Amino acid sequence: MGKYNPVDAAVVAELQQIVGDRNVWLDREKMEDYSHDAVTGEKYVHFPEAVVFPETTGQVAEIVQLANRRLIPIVPRGAGTGYACAAVAFAGGIILSTERMTKFVEFDEPNMVLIVEPGVRTVDVQKFATERGYLYPGEPSSSDSSCIGGNVATNAGGMKAIKYGTTRQQVLGLEVVTPEGEITTLGGRLKKDSTGYCLTQLMAGSEGTLGIVTKVYLKLAPKPAHVIDLLAVFDSPEAAINIVARIMQSPVSPVCVEFMDNKGIRCSEEFLNEKLPHSDKGHYIIVSLAGDNEEVLEDQCVTIDELCTAHGALEVLVADPVKIWKSRKTFGEANRARSLIFSAEDTVVPMSRIPDVVQKLSELSRKYEVTVHIAAHAADGNVHADILKEDLPLAIWNERLPLLQDELYAFIYSVGGKLSGEHGIGYKRLDLMRKYCDPVELKMMKAIKKALDPNEIMNPGKIFSLD
Amino acid sequence: MGKYNPVDAAVVAELQQIVGDRNVWLDREKMEDYSHDAVTGEKYVHFPEAVVFPETTGQVAEIVQLANRRLIPIVPRGAGTGYACAAVAFAGGIILSTERMTKFVEFDEPNMVLIVEPGVRTVDVQKFATERGYLYPGEPSSSDSSCIGGNVATNAGGMKAIKYGTTRQQVLGLEVVTPEGEITTLGGRLKKDSTGYCLTQLMAGSEGTLGIVTKVYLKLAPKPAHVIDLLAVFDSPEAAINIVARIMQSPVSPVCVEFMDNKGIRCSEEFLNEKLPHSDKGHYIIVSLAGDNEEVLEDQCVTIDELCTAHGALEVLVADPVKIWKSRKTFGEANRARSLIFSAEDTVVPMSRIPDVVQKLSELSRKYEVTVHIAAHAADGNVHADILKEDLPLAIWNERLPLLQDELYAFIYSVGGKLSGEHGIGYKRLDLMRKYCDPVELKMMKAIKKALDPNEIMNPGKIFSLD
Repeated sequence: MGKYNPVDAAVVAELQQIVGDRNVWLDREKMEDYSHDAVTGEKYVHFPEAVVFPETTGQVAEIVQLANRRLIPIVPRGAGTGYACAAVAFAGGIILSTERMTKFVEFDEPNMVLIVEPGVRTVDVQKFATERGYLYPGEPSSSDSSCIGGNVATNAGGMKAIKYGTTRQQVLGLEVVTPEGEITTLGGRLKKDSTGYCLTQLMAGSEGTLGIVTKVYLKLAPKPAHVIDLLAVFDSPEAAINIVARIMQSPVSPVCVEFMDNKGIRCSEEFLNEKLPHSDKGHYIIVSLAGDNEEVLEDQCVTIDELCTAHGALEVLVADPVKIWKSRKTFGEANRARSLIFSAEDTVVPMSRIPDVVQKLSELSRKYEVTVHIAAHAADGNVHADILKEDLPLAIWNERLPLLQDELYAFIYSVGGKLSGEHGIGYKRLDLMRKYCDPVELKMMKAIKKALDPNEIMNPGKIFSLD
Repeated sequence: MGKYNPVDAAVVAELQQIVGDRNVWLDREKMEDYSHDAVTGEKYVHFPEAVVFPETTGQVAEIVQLANRRLIPIVPRGAGTGYACAAVAFAGGIILSTERMTKFVEFDEPNMVLIVEPGVRTVDVQKFATERGYLYPGEPSSSDSSCIGGNVATNAGGMKAIKYGTTRQQVLGLEVVTPEGEITTLGGRLKKDSTGYCLTQLMAGSEGTLGIVTKVYLKLAPKPAHVIDLLAVFDSPEAAINIVARIMQSPVSPVCVEFMDNKGIRCSEEFLNEKLPHSDKGHYIIVSLAGDNEEVLEDQCVTIDELCTAHGALEVLVADPVKIWKSRKTFGEANRARSLIFSAEDTVVPMSRIPDVVQKLSELSRKYEVTVHIAAHAADGNVHADILKEDLPLAIWNERLPLLQDELYAFIYSVGGKLSGEHGIGYKRLDLMRKYCDPVELKMMKAIKKALDPNEIMNPGKIFSLD
C-alpha cells in the first residue's frame, strides 16, 4: 500500500473547492466515528486522512477524478453500520461519505420505482413506501440506521429475503461514478433487460470497490393487507431448526423464518430489560405470514401451528410484532453490550444444511471454550454466529478465534456454503477469502477490479488485495 | 478480425483427440444448420470452420485452451434458436455445441435446486420439475426447442417473467469454463451470497462472450395447484394495452399478461390453420392466474373480468390453454412463414410506456409502408415488433429498415427503454448497441471483456466489437 500519495495541503484545497470548506473534515476528533464501522477491536480501527461530504453526483465525480490524478485512495461510506470494515480507510486517503446525499429524487408510481440518493436511510425508504401503500422489502437488522447505498454495496439481506430476495433483487438500476470519475446509469426502470452485461448486479455487492453509487432505482412491491407474526418455541436448538425445512416445503410461503437460540434470546432480554416468552429454556422460530386475504392467512397460521406442534414446539403463539422483532434485531447490539469484542460470523449454507451448522457451532463453542450466540435467517441458510470474547485474555482470544474460524469455514465450504450471506468480505474477512474462495473465481474478480479501476484508488484492499 | 488463425489440419487433429472423431464436424453440408440461428437473411449467415461437440466440462476446457494457444475464435452454441446471431461464427473458427451435454446432474430436492448440463432442453427442465410437483418458471416462446445454456447466455425471458423473473432470476449458480480454459463454479445452492462480486449474474446474459456455461444450478419454485388463463378481447390495440397497467395495479398478481395485436393474431391463425376467437378485429390480452386456493383464484378472475369489461373489452373468456398459448408462442414462426425475411425487434421500456411504443410502431408502420406485427410481454414492458419484408424489394427493405429502427430506438431510449428485453444484442444489434448504449457503460463492458478474455477468442464481435 506504499504506492499512494498523502492528502496534502494542495489536495485539501482542491477538495474544499469541490465541496466547500464545511464539507471537508480533517480534525482527528471529528473523524473518530469514521475510523471504524460496527466491528470493534483495535485492529479494525484506522483513521482516514480526510472525510468529505459531497452533495451531488458531480461533486463525487470531481473527487474521484482528483483521487485518480493524485493517486489517493477513496473509501465510499454510508452510515458505517457494516460488519466487515469495508468502509474503513486502512490504506489511508479520503473517506467519501454519502450522508449529505439524502434526496428522494423521484417516485415513479406507475412503474413502482423509487429513485433515491445513497445517503437515504433504509428505514426512510420503508416509511416512504408504506405511507403510499407499497412495500420496500429490504430489511437488514440495521435498517433504522443503515443507508440504502450501503445496503447496495454489501447486498444487505435481512428479514424478508426469503420471499423478496436480498437488496440486489430490489435494485433495478444504479447511477454510479466509476473508479475513473465518469458518471453512468446502469439498468433503469426496466423489469427486464438483455442489453449487454448486467453491470447493475456486478456493482451491487461489490463493497465500493468498483465505483460509488450516487442514485438507486428501487423496485417497490405491493403492500400485503395483513401480516401475522408467529412465535414457535422449542426446547432445543435442533428441534427448532429442524422445523424450518418442513415450513418451507409446506404450501405456506412465509415472508420471514427466523431462528434465535436460547443464549441469544437471554442476551437480548437482558439488553432490552424486557421479559421475553419462554426465555428460561426456549429456542425461537419466528414466522411472518403476509397476504391480502385474511381467511387464507388464518389457514396458513393453522398449518404452521400444527406443523410446529407436531414436531415438538412447546408453544406456538401470535407474537407481539414490535416486541419480537426488537428482540431479534437487537441480537448484534446485545452481544456487543455483553462483550465489546466479538466476531460476527455471517455463514451461509444450502438451507438443508442449517441443522449441521448449528450442531457444528455448538461443538466448536465447547471445544474452544467460547460463548457463541446464534441467530439465523433460517430459511435462506444464513446463520449468524456471534462469538464473544467476554473476559478471555486478548492473547488467548487472538489465538483461538482463527483456529475456530478455520474449522468452521472448512466445514461451511465442505457443505457448499460460503463466507458471507449478507455482510460482505470487506477488510475483516480478507484472509478467509484468500483461503476459501476458489482461485479461478478470485482471479476473475481481481481481473475485473484492475480493468475498471486501473489506478486502484477505489476502496483498495477490500474483498481481496491486489498486492 | 484478421488476427485469428485458421482451423488447420493440426488443430483438427487436436480437436479429434479431445472429443473423438465423430464429435468434430468439418463437412460444409453438415454444418449448414450451424451457419445461422433463427434470424433469416443472407447477411446473417456465416459458416464456421468446424463444429465440435464436447461431452464433458473437461473437454470444453481443453478445446478452449487449444483455441487460446492457437488464437482461434470459439463460438458457444445451444439449440440455435436465438434471435440475435450470437451463436453464429462471423469471425470463423470453431462452433462449440453443447448439444451432447444433456445430463440431469442432480436434483437437490431439500434445497429445490436442479443441476443440469447446458444442452438440456428448456421443455425437459419444465417437465422434470412438473412431474415432481415443482415449477421451473423459465418459459421463453422457444422453450420446446431451446437449451437451458442458451437461455442463460441470453437471459431469456418469456411468459412468466413478470411473476418469476427472467432466466437470471432462476440461476443460483453456474459452472463455467473461462475464456482461458479454466473451470470454476460461481454461486451454488445458496439463496443469498455476499462473498465477493456476483459473477453468476455477470455471466448470465453475457451471450457466450465471457465463458462457456457447463452446468446450471436452477432454482425450482413450488407448483401452484391451480392455473386459469383468461382471454380479454378488445377492439383496438390502445384499449387492450391500456388495461395492462390497471391489471398490475390491482391486488391480483398474475403470472402472465400478454398482448397480441390483431395482425399478429390473424397471422398465427393462418399459420396454425385454426380459428381463433374474435380474430376478425380483436386484439388480445391473455392473463394467467395461478394459486393454491381455488376460491381466491376465482375472485381474482372476477376482478380481472370486471376490470377489462369496465374498460371496453368486447369479451372476457376462460381460454383453452393449449390453443391460446400455441397461438401466442407461434408468433415468431408464423411471421417467418409470412415473410422469410423479417426483423424481430425486442424493445423494452418502463411498463407505463408500452401504450406509447405501440402507438409509435403503428406510426412507423404507416410512414415506412411496412407490415408490423406486435406481441408483448406487456406487464414487463417488453414489446416484440416483427417487421415484415414481405414482397418489398430487398434494396428498399435494406434502406428502410435502418431508418425505421433509428426512429424507433431514438424513441425507445427517450422513454427510458433499451434495445433488448430478452433476445440479446449478439451480432445483429451491434450497430444499434454502438449508437445507443451509454459510452461509459459500453467502455466498462469492453474493459471487463478484455480482462477476462485477453486473447479475445471467446465469441468475438458479439454485443460489441473490440476492434
